Amino acid sequence: MSLLEQLGQQVKRASVHLSSASAKDKNDALKLIAEQIIVDQELILEANLKDLKQAEIKQISTAVMDRIRLSSDRIETISNGLLDLVELDDPIGQTLDSWSLENEIKLRKVSVPIGVVGIIYEARPNVTVDAAALCLKAGNAVLLRGSSSAIHSNTAIVRSIRTALASSNLPVDSVQLLEDTSRETAEQMFKMNEYIDVLVPRGSQNLIDVVIAKSTIPVLETGAGNCHMYVDQSADPEMAFQLVINAKTQRPSVCNAIETLLIHEEWFNRHGKALIQILKDKQVDIRGDQTVRSIDPTIQEATDVDWETEYLDMILAVKVVQTVDEAISHINLYGTSHSEAIVTESNENKVKFLNQVDAACVYHNASTRFTDGFEFGFGAEIGISTQKLHARGPMGLEALTSTKYQLSGTGQYKK
Amino acid sequence: MSLLEQLGQQVKRASVHLSSASAKDKNDALKLIAEQIIVDQELILEANLKDLKQAEIKQISTAVMDRIRLSSDRIETISNGLLDLVELDDPIGQTLDSWSLENEIKLRKVSVPIGVVGIIYEARPNVTVDAAALCLKAGNAVLLRGSSSAIHSNTAIVRSIRTALASSNLPVDSVQLLEDTSRETAEQMFKMNEYIDVLVPRGSQNLIDVVIAKSTIPVLETGAGNCHMYVDQSADPEMAFQLVINAKTQRPSVCNAIETLLIHEEWFNRHGKALIQILKDKQVDIRGDQTVRSIDPTIQEATDVDWETEYLDMILAVKVVQTVDEAISHINLYGTSHSEAIVTESNENKVKFLNQVDAACVYHNASTRFTDGFEFGFGAEIGISTQKLHARGPMGLEALTSTKYQLSGTGQYKK
Repeated sequence: MSLLEQLGQQVKRASVHLSSASAKDKNDALKLIAEQIIVDQELILEANLKDLKQAEIKQISTAVMDRIRLSSDRIETISNGLLDLVELDDPIGQTLDSWSLENEIKLRKVSVPIGVVGIIYEARPNVTVDAAALCLKAGNAVLLRGSSSAIHSNTAIVRSIRTALASSNLPVDSVQLLEDTSRETAEQMFKMNEYIDVLVPRGSQNLIDVVIAKSTIPVLETGAGNCHMYVDQSADPEMAFQLVINAKTQRPSVCNAIETLLIHEEWFNRHGKALIQILKDKQVDIRGDQTVRSIDPTIQEATDVDWETEYLDMILAVKVVQTVDEAISHINLYGTSHSEAIVTESNENKVKFLNQVDAACVYHNASTRFTDGFEFGFGAEIGISTQKLHARGPMGLEALTSTKYQLSGTGQYKK
Repeated sequence: MSLLEQLGQQVKRASVHLSSASAKDKNDALKLIAEQIIVDQELILEANLKDLKQAEIKQISTAVMDRIRLSSDRIETISNGLLDLVELDDPIGQTLDSWSLENEIKLRKVSVPIGVVGIIYEARPNVTVDAAALCLKAGNAVLLRGSSSAIHSNTAIVRSIRTALASSNLPVDSVQLLEDTSRETAEQMFKMNEYIDVLVPRGSQNLIDVVIAKSTIPVLETGAGNCHMYVDQSADPEMAFQLVINAKTQRPSVCNAIETLLIHEEWFNRHGKALIQILKDKQVDIRGDQTVRSIDPTIQEATDVDWETEYLDMILAVKVVQTVDEAISHINLYGTSHSEAIVTESNENKVKFLNQVDAACVYHNASTRFTDGFEFGFGAEIGISTQKLHARGPMGLEALTSTKYQLSGTGQYKK
């Protein structure tokens, strides 16, 4: 039996115990982990330094270096995050529905843990704690597979988590790290249907695509956000200016920022010039269609590639459309079903847009930047689903649960 | 562009229209299909005869021949099934939840269609209508891939469905059949993530395993039922006799029939002999452990293979256990998470069993034979899920839906 299979067996066995762990035992374990990573912070930071040195030698980009880097402050933030999680309601054992069959068997639909969650992630060592803690809170055991670039940090953090688990009522093997970060071993892990119930890839689109292509285990898929805002004919100009600026510039590097702006031609004729100027003043690099360029030829021409691109940067593609239907078609063709918004005073167009745009979150007269588990009131987030099975949009603890039917009878049999 | 891609594009385009189809339009289309397959029944039966002749030449088993065979009666049953579906509530556009964010944006979680469903199935041509109709009712377009053994029947049925759709308000391309039944084309279909949102394999475990192994599209997985009944120490003997007999013999060929019987040693000492006799009288072929064989040495010895096997036949593996915990461990080790039952008068053991057995449906003092979408009151069934994402247990129309968040504001932006 390979080491990977051994880990799989251990974590599966732990998941059986975890599935009936009390809310108190789970919360006590989270508190112990929160304490332990503070106690162990010297060790964790030393390990992190090794990863950073290795990254320097390999000339890894500063952006990635930043994601790897831990500090006392960051560790404290992570620790506090665990304590926030303690405050949330236990998602397990809730009666979601109940009814009686015709023969009077009483049926209850109950929330249960998924079992074993496999997390595949890149650089960020904070995911090691965050993801493991979310899984534990929902009664799941977790097998972590981080990248080689953060292996020292991840190993130190998981050692700390397991030290805490050892003095808790949860099994130590509830959290396991795959220390072998080779691609071959990862691909073996993607096919361990016997031991892993779901895989959650956290990171770049490339990572997610690889997991989807190679995995035989169901994948909780999160995806890119090529988000749009459509400014309709009747949009209030002040509101539109504010929402466009906010959705593009408040934090351009995140998935719920907009990448393409669609504007109704009549609105554009009245307010387009002013809006373009405001965007330029905010240092937004605009790629426009012919109509946009007709009022400012210095603007670079937008191509099909622009309509498809998630810039994650201070760049915005702008297109002028004739109707709300044209806007909806453009979004359904180029969008990634993440977050889409309409600014309008027309109730008819609002309803049409909210119903016909195919996306996890569709907004009317608000910034797309609210697509987020915390903003939605979930108290935690494992990612944002852009596919349609199991969970769509921001995923909180509920997305890490499954259900079970419990039926109680008095001797009923099938006639 | 390949023919397969063309079909994909057409069905995807149809799904956009379907997603905002009214309940009336969908129900009218179902009624038209119900009429049309009666009108076309001669053509369908002729085509079916071709499949049967081909099957005869290929010396296909009578069991499979039976699955392929259609008759006027069967077509009438299928047609009536469509009319039953019309009576069910529209699963789309329901408000599943609603609340306000802290900034007073109003949020509504709404049920929406999944989009395009790919159905992969074997022999049975009735699946062509049943599955297509369930998908349509939930606003989904459908790409069907049946087996070569029923290709003439399937082609005739889909032609009939499309004739009906042509006089409905739904797009004709809402239902497409992949007439090329080669394995290569099927494998291409399993990777058409751009056009297909979910694959539903209907048929043997082997078919399901192939789809899971090859598909990059999410799979709505149904699975085998290696179901158990555990007769506890305190079980009422009359009730236990009845439930064991019912769960094993009422229809042994279905997935919710039991395959292994676990009996507490004390109960076995009191009532085991009588139960074994009743089972033998009912022509059940028993495979027993040592304790079972100690009272009847003519019983064949059960091996590990027996604990793992879904017989789907009048065969029952029987094992004597010391405790409810031993029963639970056995079930969690060998079961397929389908349907599991305990017969007991002990509340403590009932609660333990219902909570700790990891299965879609867990029963107390009732036959496992009730795991079924119709018995559960769903009015329809696309299959029984034995995995943990999206849907678990009997899947009705709801399993063919996804969700969307609609958010309505008054100009809120992120601070």
